[in-house]
Amino acid sequence: MTASRFATTPKPPYYLVAFASQRPAGSPDDGYGAMAERMVELAAAQPGFLGVESARDASGFGITLSYWTDEAAIRAWRDHAEHTVARETGRTSWYEHFELRVARVERAYGKARRAG
Amino acid sequence: MTASRFATTPKPPYYLVAFASQRPAGSPDDGYGAMAERMVELAAAQPGFLGVESARDASGFGITLSYWTDEAAIRAWRDHAEHTVARETGRTSWYEHFELRVARVERAYGKARRAG
Repeated sequence: MTASRFATTPKPPYYLVAFASQRPAGSPDDGYGAMAERMVELAAAQPGFLGVESARDASGFGITLSYWTDEAAIRAWRDHAEHTVARETGRTSWYEHFELRVARVERAYGKARRAG
Repeated sequence: MTASRFATTPKPPYYLVAFASQRPAGSPDDGYGAMAERMVELAAAQPGFLGVESARDASGFGITLSYWTDEAAIRAWRDHAEHTVARETGRTSWYEHFELRVARVERAYGKARRAG
């Protein structure tokens, strides 16, 4: 069975941050992987963090969804000092293009198949 | 320059559907790729469709974000006959696990670097 990459989130409402980003094609790692891991570790320690889901394909295009109890938790994470430094490096070095959206989850459902 | 994988969305508020899914590891295509392309083509022809962004990594874990003007547009897409058939096949065959969330986008920003 594949290890789960899914976040376990509560009944809505809660919030998500959708971060879509393009890494330059064929770019070196440049400390990116370590930074990304560190950011997930830091985010998970923040009050109001509910979970994260992330996928990046071979072309360098990726989407990360992080889930939060409320907008105040998202603002606190935005203002976290180490996150702010990483974000600036992202803007100038790691991402060719990114789009960030903050949204209120209104409803949700899912399904996991049992291993046969 | 990499072809853009980003959706061009209006000023919030608007809605997104976040669909996270796990394809079974090492599974054959099984018509999946053609179905996924057809669904994007159909969705794009729906009233209220604003755009789509999608990434799936080598492990088969993927996230698709589709953007819509309002919840009525999302419901109409949900009830579209061909989409309903594809969704049922997804539930029973293509996805090991999926989670779908409907959310109202409250704010958004992004940045694209100029080719240098």
